Amino acid sequence: MTHIRPDAPQAGLPVIAALEEVAALALRLPAFDAGAAAAARARQAELAKPPGSLGRLEDLATFVAGWRGDACPCIDRAQALVFAGNHGVCAQGVNPFPQTVTAQMVTNFRDGGAAINQLCRVSGAELSVVALELDRPTADFTEAPAMTEPEALAALRAGADAVDASADVLILGEMGIGNTTVAAALGHALFGGAAADWAGRGTGADAAGVAHKSEVVARGVARHVGLTPLGTLAALGGREQAALCGAVLAARAARIPVLLDGFICTASVAPLHAADPALVGHCIAGHRSAEPGHSRLLEAMDLAPLLDLGLRLGEGTGAALALGVLRGALACHAGMATFSEAGIAGG
Amino acid sequence: MTHIRPDAPQAGLPVIAALEEVAALALRLPAFDAGAAAAARARQAELAKPPGSLGRLEDLATFVAGWRGDACPCIDRAQALVFAGNHGVCAQGVNPFPQTVTAQMVTNFRDGGAAINQLCRVSGAELSVVALELDRPTADFTEAPAMTEPEALAALRAGADAVDASADVLILGEMGIGNTTVAAALGHALFGGAAADWAGRGTGADAAGVAHKSEVVARGVARHVGLTPLGTLAALGGREQAALCGAVLAARAARIPVLLDGFICTASVAPLHAADPALVGHCIAGHRSAEPGHSRLLEAMDLAPLLDLGLRLGEGTGAALALGVLRGALACHAGMATFSEAGIAGG
Repeated sequence: MTHIRPDAPQAGLPVIAALEEVAALALRLPAFDAGAAAAARARQAELAKPPGSLGRLEDLATFVAGWRGDACPCIDRAQALVFAGNHGVCAQGVNPFPQTVTAQMVTNFRDGGAAINQLCRVSGAELSVVALELDRPTADFTEAPAMTEPEALAALRAGADAVDASADVLILGEMGIGNTTVAAALGHALFGGAAADWAGRGTGADAAGVAHKSEVVARGVARHVGLTPLGTLAALGGREQAALCGAVLAARAARIPVLLDGFICTASVAPLHAADPALVGHCIAGHRSAEPGHSRLLEAMDLAPLLDLGLRLGEGTGAALALGVLRGALACHAGMATFSEAGIAGG
Repeated sequence: MTHIRPDAPQAGLPVIAALEEVAALALRLPAFDAGAAAAARARQAELAKPPGSLGRLEDLATFVAGWRGDACPCIDRAQALVFAGNHGVCAQGVNPFPQTVTAQMVTNFRDGGAAINQLCRVSGAELSVVALELDRPTADFTEAPAMTEPEALAALRAGADAVDASADVLILGEMGIGNTTVAAALGHALFGGAAADWAGRGTGADAAGVAHKSEVVARGVARHVGLTPLGTLAALGGREQAALCGAVLAARAARIPVLLDGFICTASVAPLHAADPALVGHCIAGHRSAEPGHSRLLEAMDLAPLLDLGLRLGEGTGAALALGVLRGALACHAGMATFSEAGIAGG
């Protein structure tokens, strides 16, 4: 459950020698298969139900059909990946928990005791946890770029390498004390507004803590202006943010749709969206987090979340819950009788 | 899959000799166990996560704990019940499909070809379909009460008898050509507003069809004024509506929480709410339907839906999807490590 299968085929993500190469990757990666999607849409119209009455389940089936290149896709294997990292910006006192909790939670994931373990079991996903140099936090972004370009590339590649190319869907999550501050900085830098628009309570900051977090975010973003989206990822993001970008790209290379989790997960892949929205075209927002910055991100990235249950835990929990909806959508698509099979005159 | 288990223990719903006895049943049926709920809430506070970070999953665990009378409840058996009936008001031309489709869809349920079959399989629910005298539609409520009191009581009892008292959760759904008109009439009669507020497109009425439906609803409701809520159920409802009320009451007798489906299912149990809101205290709104009347009902009955995916199919589909969320909530509640078990200092 907690290890990458050693025999997993490698996803076909091209070698990336410089961060700026990412911006042009959409042209080299598989595109949405409009023919498969149209065939799926045609099948939906024949199923024994009033047209459109399955709402977003119909759209999900068409979406997955297009990205898998299969008019009747199924989920035999669902992979869940949780990336963990530590952040130099914690030196600014942005989180009430100590950074040692990141490693403790990784142990909890590996022992099966976290929320994501239970939700992966319920939804039938294989969970792997990838801890990224937890004893070597990134630099404090209020003082220097969080990552050098080689560090960001290494983390991105670690994320890509963790993707099982034989999976049918990928669930993404993260863990990292301080990473709502990192996510707020990415959102603020990439999409503007005020720093306070992006800073929420995270793991449990009080009002003074949120105000302090906003100030830290504002200071960090002001220190790293005029960068490209991928440059912003390196300057403000952490290793798990870069790894999430790598996983999204590797999934795309293998035509695997991605279920994103909440605020941090979405902010982590926002640099890809800012570089080229097509890079995240195969991503679905699993849910809307209670962190206020998430709604801003979803709007900016034109993502409509599947669930809205007030979660703000991260770990991939919202995405894992959403897998149940996706499974339902594909089960209806594949398993329902058509009007003629059921002997019913269409409406 | 499509039959009631013959060895199912009978739910302990008292004999009901007259519809008006239902209004006082809340006093005789099990109440929410505040002690079990408080113990569940205390456990949630110890689990290794920021307090409240699982949002509605935490509330669901507490809700089920209180209704089951068990601080750490689980779902070993999930029962799904779909009730089907036919409606005399179809004589008014309120539905583009012929009434024969109700029986054809029952056959489709029994053959495993409907959406609800696929969703029950994905979410792990045992589906039973109860067809209620399909060859004997209720009376046209624009001309007479839809059901006599004995007819309504018989249907209510059929619904109660279908409940498996050994289930841990009950999913409810319905099928019946014309029953969005019936649901609109119940909503209009019980909660007021204009008839047009409650009449939606149903299985696919066009604008003229919706206007006609509104007019039929207004005429039917005007014919049956000054009735009690249960009297309204008999006058305007159909057999599957009464059966849904019976199933909700029998579930309550066995301390089984209920996942309601969409517009019709919610409208069907609205007479119970109108008689005494406590009668539906153990019910959860599985989803918000795209039928506009459903949002009005949810508000009037103070129900917060778990999902909002644009479904408007009925059959129990939204409730079956919501079972996945409920399973996730209880799995986290039972399976997560506490802060001390995980060796993490609480926030």
